[in-house]
Amino acid sequence: MNELNGYDIEDLAPGMSASMSKEISHADIVKFAEVSGDVNPVHLDEDYAATTPFGGRIAHGMLSASLISAVVANRLPGPGTVYLDQKLTFRAPVRPGDIVEAVVTVREVQDKGRVVLETECRVGDTIVVSGEGLVKVGSLARRQGKARA
Amino acid sequence: MNELNGYDIEDLAPGMSASMSKEISHADIVKFAEVSGDVNPVHLDEDYAATTPFGGRIAHGMLSASLISAVVANRLPGPGTVYLDQKLTFRAPVRPGDIVEAVVTVREVQDKGRVVLETECRVGDTIVVSGEGLVKVGSLARRQGKARA
Repeated sequence: MNELNGYDIEDLAPGMSASMSKEISHADIVKFAEVSGDVNPVHLDEDYAATTPFGGRIAHGMLSASLISAVVANRLPGPGTVYLDQKLTFRAPVRPGDIVEAVVTVREVQDKGRVVLETECRVGDTIVVSGEGLVKVGSLARRQGKARA
Repeated sequence: MNELNGYDIEDLAPGMSASMSKEISHADIVKFAEVSGDVNPVHLDEDYAATTPFGGRIAHGMLSASLISAVVANRLPGPGTVYLDQKLTFRAPVRPGDIVEAVVTVREVQDKGRVVLETECRVGDTIVVSGEGLVKVGSLARRQGKARA
């Protein structure tokens, strides 16, 4: 682990996993609309949203995606991680009151500190967002080498 | 255009582009941290962030990405669009006070209402996020066919 309690490349192996769950409230959706500028009525206006194929308000897809980035930043690999790439596939809607579980699993540890992550958001048994992340993490060996140099 | 003023597949051609700009405030970053749960001190604590390679607080990468989704949802293709996929590459940090311009450009109009979008966030001349989106839009011809049927 590094000094911030984030994982070094030497600590990581395929299959390691971390997650966090969050209930998505209507207040969260309103805040996300304010920050992003995405004020589409399908997110904000129940009367309008009820007329769409979704049948009611849904959360922004990027709100669920932001939970993935929170797991990456806070837990696996955690503080010190540099986010390089993220692929997202939006599979199913998330509604106010849904509990979204964001799950990050190490798929591959590459050279140069690069780690491929499987990234998924679920509501119950339904995968609502799937995808893959690529991050860069530090190295204990490199820090020790620098310290000795 | 559809009844919500979003583009139909018949309206779209490669090269069409739309954008929005937003100054990212520290208040935006705090709100994004609340909604996402990503409370990494590199986003929130100037004293800590000053000790990192970034030299000061930076915005969440997904905050810039959320501006892309706002352009897709509000402008191009606009209301009625279904977001299928988004690939993101995080290239450079965004700092409080930076003005992020999110630019969406039609790259390819495919069959079955699918449209490939080039998606980019810039701060001045620097590309901070690049990537590609895949969306599904409605069809005027199909709506008229249904109306006649």
